[in-house]
This record gives sequence, structure tokens and C-alpha cells, in this order.
Amino acid sequence: MATLPKSLEELIEALGALPGVGPRSAERYAYFLLKADKNKSNRLSKALDGLHSGIKTCPKTFALIDASQDVSPLYDDPNRDKTTVALVADPFDIIALEKTTLYRGTYHVLGGLISPIDGVGPEQLHINELKKRIDDDNVTEIILATNASVEGETTALYIQQELDTLDNVKITRLARGLPIGVDLEYADQITLGRALEGRQSL
Amino acid sequence: MATLPKSLEELIEALGALPGVGPRSAERYAYFLLKADKNKSNRLSKALDGLHSGIKTCPKTFALIDASQDVSPLYDDPNRDKTTVALVADPFDIIALEKTTLYRGTYHVLGGLISPIDGVGPEQLHINELKKRIDDDNVTEIILATNASVEGETTALYIQQELDTLDNVKITRLARGLPIGVDLEYADQITLGRALEGRQSL
Repeated sequence: MATLPKSLEELIEALGALPGVGPRSAERYAYFLLKADKNKSNRLSKALDGLHSGIKTCPKTFALIDASQDVSPLYDDPNRDKTTVALVADPFDIIALEKTTLYRGTYHVLGGLISPIDGVGPEQLHINELKKRIDDDNVTEIILATNASVEGETTALYIQQELDTLDNVKITRLARGLPIGVDLEYADQITLGRALEGRQSL
Repeated sequence: MATLPKSLEELIEALGALPGVGPRSAERYAYFLLKADKNKSNRLSKALDGLHSGIKTCPKTFALIDASQDVSPLYDDPNRDKTTVALVADPFDIIALEKTTLYRGTYHVLGGLISPIDGVGPEQLHINELKKRIDDDNVTEIILATNASVEGETTALYIQQELDTLDNVKITRLARGLPIGVDLEYADQITLGRALEGRQSL
């Protein structure tokens, strides 16, 4: 006994495939789109159609760029310091770092993190391309900007060892410590431990 | 300084128009769709395209039905009791009631609730069509299944008065009381008051 029109059911199912969207939220989104005028769903549908065709990976930094671009505009920007490279796991990490508006260097996307459980080894990451960039652009600093997770730390350690032979490249890592706005008493012990270790003189 | 490819930005914006989806969630959905293979976004886009064209309103009950159907299949079902009509505000309320699997009657969608603030008066609701159905189908019971909100109560009261002249139609209302799984101490006082008023002998 189907009480839902088929096209509504199909939309709810498709929306339910989004991460963290349960059947209840999927229903809510679908009802909203059905009640709203047709432009809203048309706009979303068009944006979805253009998604994969409109985006490619920068061959140099592996950031996501418009399909019409040759290389990441951020990398191409003369105002950005090519000798400082922040190493990130994902193209989306770039956006998070750019939001700080504090970084004037460039990025290199590893394309993942070392995770034996998921079958990701160092050979799948863009490490050779990074080495080439270090040579080509006379890179002087590599900032390891990987997640503060086991995989992130493992990858950071691996890359640190890989690049250890390069004498004129400084390797740094994002500071670990108390996130802003979090009470000391609610911080977990590992974070607090790192904050202690990394304490700075005033 | 655009760090996001244009097509990704467009999708994030379109997803952000969904109810309760902030920029963070919209980003998350867009990234997920970008990382997932093209089928997922194609499926969603197709479902969106078919949404409005595939659905129409039943001319009898005002429920949502497939564009190919003449009348709500639920209304057409010989196993459903046409003499009992549950009056709901929205087509989506039907789905909620159907999920209980306890109701064997039919439905009538009002198409809203009386709300002077939003400019919705009784003349905009499908009340005349309800009266016609009461005559046509020899309806014996109208269940007022509106929300337990001010608008829902107002609408229920209005319809009760409207149908008061019909002698052979019983008018009932959904019970108000404690929701299942909620502790008595956490129930609000109005709900608890209604639960007391509506107490049943065992």
C-alpha cells in the first residue's frame, strides 16, 4: 500500500543517501522542495548536473579547480608564497585553512591519509609530486596540516621521515592545543596534554 | 579570492536553501556528492526533475497522488471506509497517520490551518469540498486530526461549529495526552493537563 507518490518516494530515497540525512530529514527536505516553487528544485538539479563536469583536479597541487582552469588559481597567484607549502589530506582542508585568512603560502593535497585498515599506503598519496614541487619551487617550508587523528599523525610522521634528507626544507606542524571557546575542564586529556607540551612563553 | 570551484559553490548554495541546512551541512553534502561517483548526484538530480511533474493533488481528497492517477488510490481502495474521514491540514499528515497502520478510514486534506497572522482564513481551506463529500459518501464520522497547536485547535473548533448542524455526523478529535516514551516529569503542563482531563478508566 503506497501512500506516497512515486516521484516523491524517489526523491526521499535519493536525499536519504546524503551523509547524516536520515529518513525523517529526507522527508522534510522533499516536502519542502515539493511545497516550494519549481525554481528551487530546478536550481538544485542543475547544480547537481554541473557538479562533476565543472570540476577537475589541479595537476600541480591536486586542489579542486574549475574545469576551465589549467592550474589552481591560488597556486598561480603571484601574491602567494610558493616556497611555503601546506600539506593537507583533502582538497576541502584548503577551504578550512583559507577561511582563517592567515596563510599566504600554497597548498599540496596528499589525496588521503595513510590508513592500513582502509588499504591506503603512502604510495597512493601524492608524495612524489610533492618532492618534485620542492625541487621546482625551491620550497623552504612544509607545513604538515593533517588531521589530529591517528591516520593524520601517522601520515605526518611518514612524510617527516621521507623529507628528513632534505637539508634546506623546514618541516613544521600545526599546533595542537585548546580549541578557542572550550573550557579547560571539558577538554579531553590528550588535547590538554598537547597544550601543556606546546605551551608558549608570553 | 575564490578558493572553491564555481560549480561546487553553486551546489552548496542550492543545498543551503533546504530547511535546517546551514552552510556547514550544505558543504558536507556537496563534498560527499563530489567524492561519490556520478550516479549519486545524477539520481538526485533526476528525482528533483521529476518531482513537480510527477505529482498532482487528488481532486476529491486533496492528497498528493501520482500524476497518472485520477483519484487517491487510498480513497479508491474498497477496503477503506469512506464513511469515516480524517481531516488533516497537510497531505504529509496522511503519511504520518498511515504509518500507525491503525486507521481504516479515508482522509480529507484541508490545505492549511486557519491563521489570521499568515492571512489564512477558513475560505481558503477545502471545507466546501468536505461538505460535499459528507453528502456524497454518507460520512458518519469526521476525525479532526489537526496539530495540537493554536492554529490546529482554532481550525478544529471552526470546523466543529461548521458541521454542528449535521445531525448524523459524529465529530471526534485525536486524543491529547502523554506521548509514549516521555517521562511524566518532563511533560509540559498543558500536555499533562490534557492527559488528566482525558483520563480513561481501565
